[in-house]
Order: sequence, then C-alpha cells, then structure tokens
Amino acid sequence: MDLPGRSIISIRDFARDEILGIVDKALEVKAGEWADALHGKVLATLFFEPSTRTRLSFEAAMVSMGGRVIGFADPNISSTRKGETLADTIRTVTGYCDVIAMRHPVEGSARLASEVASVPIINAGDGANQHPTQTFLDLVTLKEEFGRLEGLAVGMLGDLKYGRTVHSLAMALSLFGGRLSLISPPGLRMPAHVKEELDSAGTRYEELRDLGELTSDLDVLYVTRIQKERFADFQEYERVAGAYRIRRDTLTGPCTRVRLMHPLPRVDEIAEEVDATPNAIYFRQAHNGIPTRQALLGLVTGVIR
Amino acid sequence: MDLPGRSIISIRDFARDEILGIVDKALEVKAGEWADALHGKVLATLFFEPSTRTRLSFEAAMVSMGGRVIGFADPNISSTRKGETLADTIRTVTGYCDVIAMRHPVEGSARLASEVASVPIINAGDGANQHPTQTFLDLVTLKEEFGRLEGLAVGMLGDLKYGRTVHSLAMALSLFGGRLSLISPPGLRMPAHVKEELDSAGTRYEELRDLGELTSDLDVLYVTRIQKERFADFQEYERVAGAYRIRRDTLTGPCTRVRLMHPLPRVDEIAEEVDATPNAIYFRQAHNGIPTRQALLGLVTGVIR
Amino acid sequence: MDLPGRSIISIRDFARDEILGIVDKALEVKAGEWADALHGKVLATLFFEPSTRTRLSFEAAMVSMGGRVIGFADPNISSTRKGETLADTIRTVTGYCDVIAMRHPVEGSARLASEVASVPIINAGDGANQHPTQTFLDLVTLKEEFGRLEGLAVGMLGDLKYGRTVHSLAMALSLFGGRLSLISPPGLRMPAHVKEELDSAGTRYEELRDLGELTSDLDVLYVTRIQKERFADFQEYERVAGAYRIRRDTLTGPCTRVRLMHPLPRVDEIAEEVDATPNAIYFRQAHNGIPTRQALLGLVTGVIR
Repeated sequence: MDLPGRSIISIRDFARDEILGIVDKALEVKAGEWADALHGKVLATLFFEPSTRTRLSFEAAMVSMGGRVIGFADPNISSTRKGETLADTIRTVTGYCDVIAMRHPVEGSARLASEVASVPIINAGDGANQHPTQTFLDLVTLKEEFGRLEGLAVGMLGDLKYGRTVHSLAMALSLFGGRLSLISPPGLRMPAHVKEELDSAGTRYEELRDLGELTSDLDVLYVTRIQKERFADFQEYERVAGAYRIRRDTLTGPCTRVRLMHPLPRVDEIAEEVDATPNAIYFRQAHNGIPTRQALLGLVTGVIR
Repeated sequence: MDLPGRSIISIRDFARDEILGIVDKALEVKAGEWADALHGKVLATLFFEPSTRTRLSFEAAMVSMGGRVIGFADPNISSTRKGETLADTIRTVTGYCDVIAMRHPVEGSARLASEVASVPIINAGDGANQHPTQTFLDLVTLKEEFGRLEGLAVGMLGDLKYGRTVHSLAMALSLFGGRLSLISPPGLRMPAHVKEELDSAGTRYEELRDLGELTSDLDVLYVTRIQKERFADFQEYERVAGAYRIRRDTLTGPCTRVRLMHPLPRVDEIAEEVDATPNAIYFRQAHNGIPTRQALLGLVTGVIR
Repeated sequence: MDLPGRSIISIRDFARDEILGIVDKALEVKAGEWADALHGKVLATLFFEPSTRTRLSFEAAMVSMGGRVIGFADPNISSTRKGETLADTIRTVTGYCDVIAMRHPVEGSARLASEVASVPIINAGDGANQHPTQTFLDLVTLKEEFGRLEGLAVGMLGDLKYGRTVHSLAMALSLFGGRLSLISPPGLRMPAHVKEELDSAGTRYEELRDLGELTSDLDVLYVTRIQKERFADFQEYERVAGAYRIRRDTLTGPCTRVRLMHPLPRVDEIAEEVDATPNAIYFRQAHNGIPTRQALLGLVTGVIR
C-alpha cells in the first residue's frame, strides 16, 4: 500500500487492488494489529455541515488508536462568517494537524481542499457527491461476512435515485463482478449515469419494483431510507414506504438467508423486530466504521503501511 | 467492589456497602492513587440536553486520568433530527467507546439506554429524575469533611419540591442514620414520596419554614436555588428568596460551624461574602466531581477495583 | 524565564526581556525541543464568544505537545444562562484543569478571571481589548524572519482605529526601536492613546494615506481588514477598501521585498495571486500560533523553563 500523503476524496480514485488492500488493512486493524499506531498524530475534524455519527466515528477511530482530535462540529464557523474562503480556512488548519476529515455541503469542496492542503484530506461527505469512508466500511463488512468481494449477489432497496451511498457502492462493486438487483419505486430508480458505468464495467444488474419479483437468492440486501420530501402526496409516500419496509416475515424465499445492511440512521425502513435475527448486520456494519477509518487515517499519515 | 460492566443509573440501585465502597474509592483517587488508570479507555459524552459544567467535569475526569473523550454537547444531533430513535443512537455509539456518560431531558432515558448498550451507561441527568454522580460527589464531600457518613445532622434549604439533588441525597442519607432538617417555603416542601421513604427507613427529619426555627446545631446546610419560575408573582418570589439567602450574618447560633454545600450554579442564594468563610465548601464540593467521576468511570470499565 | 503560575492577560504586562525570552522559547519549541512537554496537563478552552481559528490553534498546540483539552466553543453556556457569574464559572473550572484559555466579549474579563482562578489564565481575546498570544506570534514571526526584533521598518495598513492587533503590536514594537509607517484612511487612523505611547517610548512613526507615499523600504507590511460596517456608504467603502488592496503589482518600489503579514482571516485585502510570492508570509505567521502557544502553555504550567 502506498498511500502516505494521499487524500481520500472519492472511491473512484482507487483501483481495484488499492481497494482490496485498504479493506484487508481495515480487517487487520479490527483484528488488533496496529494498536496505538496513530500515537502523536493530530486529526482535525472540520464539519461545515453537522453529521454527529460520522464525526464521532472519526474521533473514536483516532483516539482509540492513540491519536488526538481537534475540530468543530457545526457550520457556524466564525472565520467563515467573516467572509474567509474555504481555501484559506484549509491553508490555516493544515498547519495545525497531520490529517483533516472534512464534511461540507458543497459538491467538490473536498477536492478543492485537497488541492490547497499540505496534509491529506479525508472526505467525510461533500453534498450529494461522495462519502468514500462509508463505501469502504460497506466493503469491509462484505469482506468480513463473505470472505470475498467477488461475485456477490447484492440487492439495493429503496431510494436509489438520491442515495449517494448506493451509487458509490454500486460503482465499487462493479470492480468485483457479481450481480445487482436494484429494487425501487419507479420514480426513485438508479440514475442513468450509474447504470451506464455498470454497463461499461460489464456488471449484470436487474431493476425490480419490489422484493417479490426476486427470482434467485441474494447474499446481501442494502436498505436505504425513502424520504417523505421526495413525494408530493403524503399518502402516496406512506403507501410506497410501507411496501419497502423490512419485517421478520420479509425474510423468506430468496431473502431467507440474506444479510441486511443499512447506512443508518434508519427510521422505520427496518422493523426493530428484525434486529435480533441473524440477518441483521447493520449495527456491526456501523461499528466497522472504526477500523475502516483507522486504517485510512493510518495509511494516509504513513504510520500504517 | 464488583462494578465492571455495570451502569450507574440511580443512586437507589446501590446498597449501603456499595455506596461506601464507591465513596472510599473516590477518596483514594483524590489522594493520587490510580493515576492514569483510564489510559486507553474512551468515554462518549452524549449530552442531548446542554449541561456545560457536568460535561466538563466528566471530560476532565477522563482526560486527567489518561483517558480519551468523544461526544456532543447539545441536543441538535443530526441523526436524531433525521428521526433516529435513542435506542439506535446508543446501539451505534456503543461500538465507538468503553463507557457512555449521557444526559437527556426525558425521565427513564438512561435506563432505556443501559438496556441496549453493550458498554456501561453513566446517567448524567435524565430530566427531573436522577443524577447519581452528583449524589456520589455530595457523599464524597461529606465523608472527606467529617470522616464518616453516619449520624450527620444535615439541613436542606430552599426548593425541596423540584430539587432532584436533594431528593437523591436525602434518600442516600437515609441509609446512614443521622437526621434531616428540611427548610423550605410551604409551597416548595419535600415531596410526600421522599418523606415516605425517609419514614420507612426510620430517618428522623423535621420540616421548618426558616433557619431561625432550628433548635440544634447542623453539621451541614445544603442550599438550593429557588427559581423565579415557581412563583406567579415576582414580588412574592423576591420576598421568599430573600428570606432564604445565606449571608455572613446567617452563620450564627446553630449555623455557627455549619458547612455550606450547594450543587451549583448559584445565583444569589449565597452571598459572595460567604465564600471566604471556613463554612463555605461548595467549590471544593464541585471539584470533588473529578475524583468521584474518575472512580466511577474506572470501576465500571474495570480498571479500578 | 520565571513564568510558572502567571496569567497572560496583556502584552503590556511583559517587560522587554520577558518578551524576548518568550519569543526565543517559541522558536526552540518550533525547532522541536520540548516535545511532549505538556504530557499530563489539561487545558480548558472557555470560549464565551466563538473564535474557531483561535480555539483550534490552542487545542492543536496542546494536543500536539502531549496535553489534553476540555472546553466549550460557543457562548451558550448552560450555567451562564442560569445566571451564574463569570467568577463562579472560573472558580469551578479552575478545579478541572491546569491552565485556562479564555475568550470573552467583555473587556477586562480575562483580568477578572485571573483574580479568582487558582490556575493561570491565557487571554484569548477580551472584547476590543487584548489578544496577547496574537501579538506574541507576530513577534515570533518577525524574529524568525529577520533574526531580530530591533530596528525593523514596519508598515501597518488598513483599519488602524479599531484593529486590536495593530495596537498591541505597535506598543510591543515600541520596546525594540525601529520605525512605523501607519497607513490608513483618515477616518481609521491609529488612536491618539497609542500614538502617545509611541511618543513617550521615543518610537519614530509616520502617518500616511496610501502606500504610494512611502519614501523608504519597509521590512514588513502588516495588513488588516477594513470592515464594511465602518462606512455609512457602501460605495465609499468599496473605493477605500480597493485603494488598500494588495496585489502582485503593489509589490514594487519600497515594497519590492516587503514581507506581508496579516492576522487572518482575510477577505480580499490581499489578492490570492500574492500568496505564491516570496513576500507572503501570513500563513506561516498563522502556523506560528502553534509553537507560540505551546511555549506559553508550557511556561505558565511550569513544564517549560
């Protein structure tokens, strides 16, 4: 792995072998290797948009491996209010730390930051665009669960149109063969540009309207939230969201042994009664954010290789 | 002490011997034993309701004993805003840390959290209900000051109706004999359910309307704030609050040698001129929050025994 | 250096030799001496007024030298809202930490805090009054750049009336000879009380209306922001601010080799095209906040001598 000094902006910047290398490194970290590797390193968490869960995950990753954290948690940055550009904020903070994790509402902001920073930037979400550490932790969870990334049958359920997470994951999975079942209401289908990429990578996929149309077993079902705001009519929303809700009795037929993943937070896309089933791996998935981010923090700062 | 893995939700969950053991452990910590015992441990401070003083005390406790802290300081949690349940937030954060200190406006929330968490929860206040580390630090201060918890003459002054602190302390003291003088305006008397508990524990108490009615010496006077919001009429509030204000010239008769305690913040219940008297121990009491919380953090994470 | 226990409230509390000693200590820290000197020390950052950049700089200083940080970042302090006095907040927090960095909107608040605290207070800005660590880092940058503080030709440009930074720097430089060129619009001139001090220290200075009036080379030009709020008329602001804007083509004549400093954040007082010139040292200046604050934190806590 040759990642020292490199920024993590988009999963698409990484070749297949690099992704595999990072995933394996995260599993090494989870197994207890590299303890305290981040000792003496300082992470700045710059959250120009709140995301408590992601921020806590980065902070926990850092401090539980011996590192230190500075940063801010909300967009009300005093120097930004005074009219400072993002570039200047980054040029200043880059002198305070060894690595920056940054979340910003504007697409492309993380890339811009990486161009003026003298330390690596890890994109913790830039608008609707990229959130690469989420995709890495999804892949780590798949590798941990199945021992491989190749040739998996992965369903994606819910809002596939606006869901940044499923776009990135679909593109990443296209590097590893397998096949995708894209299950969504007609108005929330996977966008054309993602499907074109799947096509050009030779990835097989089908588009379905509901889980009942599945004809073969899924290894994984990746559930996403359907947001009220996408519907003009509340009753229409209720009807659609209800049809995509996972219950215990959903776990039959091709879904009998399916592993359920979810980027969290969930609202009611998955009933709480499902949590106790062996299918539910979404909390373990969330917890994998720690070793995944530790591996990335260690690799870009050069203390893990 | 067998506390590893145990949550600290209410003082009422602890037997007399357990309380004594915890108090003694806190005094050991204050004496300098157990330095750096929390090295490598991560505390998550989840403050769904702001409480700067309590949060800083937990954080200082942790970091000055070698531990690390992640967390949030205000209720504007992004995942909660998206509709996530408290249980799901806890299920996620439980994978990020070794112990959680949590403050929440809803009674019973800390207990609920402890049922879904895989790490110990320390209740840092759940609504008007419990705030057990405050009670432990009050007891630590009494033990430090008098060398014992048994048989103390303790006055409680001010708002005894709404004051969570004095309810818990009264119940804890009922395990150790002694006698209570409950001094309050008629509308702000100690609630019946607390007095019933004192009765059933055989604790002697008297109810008075003002300090002038005291007939024997107090060891301690625990002062609480009378809040404007409890009175329909501002002038009535002014009159009542003034009558319960402690001044230098209050410290006569049965109060000549009384130790003054207060959960802080104070507004004007105790005049600043009192701070320099030997009676005033309320800032030392506040500072005892550090060793008390260190002892509890160490005990529940199993690094102090 | 005999600074243990001492508060850093105003640059004016320090004699010439003390300032030189502190500046040299900061350069030692920057050179890598004193690594981890702050291990085991706890800083409380109490920001009753937001200042993200200053707060992050203090936190980075502390954690990258092995120390720990607790604190709050905004004025919405729950105990203050309940009516607690600043003195009481400080009396409490003083028991939680080894040193306090405090920012507060009210002039004189840091001095007040230092009178009730049992640990040193570092003033991180009290209203329009003092911000001594900014002045120290300015001096550190000058010493680093020129090898001396004595006899420098320093220009100060922009809003000299309301700019706390230039007042303090001018007074500090008056201890070291040299000469000042004070360049500002007529309505934003250096206040009389600062000029009186320069006079009584025998410091030579000239007052100019624009850079074109300079007759001899400057070593340094310290640029400050002219704020819209100072002008009744927006077009007047635009005209004035434009005349004081530094561009690449400003760097001619007496400004050919001038080093440009700025307290940041900048808005458009210095065009971005200037950043790549050898004249621009303002980001290095900002980064010097770290070793400067580390030296001060170490000196007042007694771990650096």
